[in-house]
Amino acid sequence: MTVPTLLVLDADPLPRLGRLTGRARVEHADDATLAERLPHADVLLVWDFTSRAVRDAWPGEGPRPRWVHTASAGVDHLMCPELAASDTLVTNARGVFDQPIAEYVLALVLSMAKELPRTWELQRERTWRHRETQRVAGTRAVVVGSGPIGRTIARLLKALDVTTAIVGRTPHTGIHGPEDLDRLIARADWVIAAAPLTEQTYGMFDARRFGVMQPSARFINIGRGGLVVEDALTEALAKRWIAGAALDVFEHEPLAPDSPLWEVPGLIVSPHMSGDTVGWRDQLGTQFVELWERWEAGRPLLNVVDKKRGYVPGR
Amino acid sequence: MTVPTLLVLDADPLPRLGRLTGRARVEHADDATLAERLPHADVLLVWDFTSRAVRDAWPGEGPRPRWVHTASAGVDHLMCPELAASDTLVTNARGVFDQPIAEYVLALVLSMAKELPRTWELQRERTWRHRETQRVAGTRAVVVGSGPIGRTIARLLKALDVTTAIVGRTPHTGIHGPEDLDRLIARADWVIAAAPLTEQTYGMFDARRFGVMQPSARFINIGRGGLVVEDALTEALAKRWIAGAALDVFEHEPLAPDSPLWEVPGLIVSPHMSGDTVGWRDQLGTQFVELWERWEAGRPLLNVVDKKRGYVPGR
Repeated sequence: MTVPTLLVLDADPLPRLGRLTGRARVEHADDATLAERLPHADVLLVWDFTSRAVRDAWPGEGPRPRWVHTASAGVDHLMCPELAASDTLVTNARGVFDQPIAEYVLALVLSMAKELPRTWELQRERTWRHRETQRVAGTRAVVVGSGPIGRTIARLLKALDVTTAIVGRTPHTGIHGPEDLDRLIARADWVIAAAPLTEQTYGMFDARRFGVMQPSARFINIGRGGLVVEDALTEALAKRWIAGAALDVFEHEPLAPDSPLWEVPGLIVSPHMSGDTVGWRDQLGTQFVELWERWEAGRPLLNVVDKKRGYVPGR
Repeated sequence: MTVPTLLVLDADPLPRLGRLTGRARVEHADDATLAERLPHADVLLVWDFTSRAVRDAWPGEGPRPRWVHTASAGVDHLMCPELAASDTLVTNARGVFDQPIAEYVLALVLSMAKELPRTWELQRERTWRHRETQRVAGTRAVVVGSGPIGRTIARLLKALDVTTAIVGRTPHTGIHGPEDLDRLIARADWVIAAAPLTEQTYGMFDARRFGVMQPSARFINIGRGGLVVEDALTEALAKRWIAGAALDVFEHEPLAPDSPLWEVPGLIVSPHMSGDTVGWRDQLGTQFVELWERWEAGRPLLNVVDKKRGYVPGR
């Protein structure tokens, strides 16, 4: 019996693969060598989720991996028409990031309500300046994205007595459809983008949408940079259409040192880290090995992405 | 029928007192005039809760107010042996600050776990530096103080899946007694001081207690500055006995511009604002008017402080 070939697209060392010793022939690729090695692989593990090399390297016809797993929640960086049309299965890291990202969103919401950035500024200036801050209980939030990340964010916000609505692609029990989005964000104190990046969601937060929001609203994006028209957000903040924003993800990452976004007043910039708590690489490695063992045994995989939609459907 | 005299010790204008027009003769005092006016007042409202003038001005014998209300949760700033020994009732602002302070503590806990202060530092430097942060779910907290503020803090922490213990003066269902304190803080990730300042609690967070805590622990004080030996905390942070701290209250307030506390590495300084959300003065004013109406009607007052203990006992 031949041992299947696992090709790993990696930048960093990868924990837990030792458990596959003798059961997989592990090969490595980087962006430059991926196209050459891809046809010989049975399985591709996209460990470097910042790479967009799969889209360019994916073989149109002929031999190709039967399964691609990405160590990320989003699959936008690897999906291409040829992969979508193929019979190759794509799986993602659904579940690993839910609680960490939800906690991160809560940290941002509370920090903005309690003006912690201003507090740190005043501390540096050795200035004692009492201020009145905002109560979070009783405010309204809209979470755009009805996957496990969006739903966990909503659960934690509700625990703080924030009235929270979820908007997804299709209406459901407890989930609003896209037709409700504008009405909901028009009276929201917090608008949180947690949707996958797809053709439907690309640029959905544009000048019109920021114009619909309240002047007191704050916007948070922990999904994908492409959900937001960054210039429109910059303008919305400058014109005080909204009161503040936090971006953890950007159209181009890492954000260039000369990007104007670093210094937009009222904007908090963080380096795509909302889901990455201590131990996350271990968890991603463990999750992949568990999927491998299912695949090896011929059992159905979990976290299978609907390649047309660009995410794992269902609850 | 004579209209009772309400003496207000104030610094700022006070909302809602208009409702007492014709039902109270309202007089005002400041620190300098309090002693002279106090004997003629039926009721004293300590609106300026930063003042310590009541302790000096309280008449030992002879005429004095029958009721003193303070627009604060703590009563340490006004209690003195003569007031404690008198038959004057003391009430406080129990309830107004619970949710705001609990949200503030959550904001600090999450900001420290997610390293937001470091994120803002890096943003100012235009530096993209990905880091792994801490998951809050599954950590352990100890809340010292079993009044409504401490209990609300514990409730919100538990909503984030933080294992939370409460320590109070006397053990109770769900409340640990002081004898458990050292054992609990020795394995806590978060130690939160929310106790009233009394003879028993003064200086309770001293070098020995910081030495008991874990090197990964963070300490937060939103109670009263006197709970903490500030030099001991500074040393504990310098020696890495604990990982971080946040003080919203201080032995001397406002903190002097030349206080070394402003620049202690790992210490977040804020200006006694944890409970003060927009509308708080209105709520305090409304609460006092409601108490006045009970008092006027001869009904028992609420929020009556046990003057020997220095707080409102019971749940």
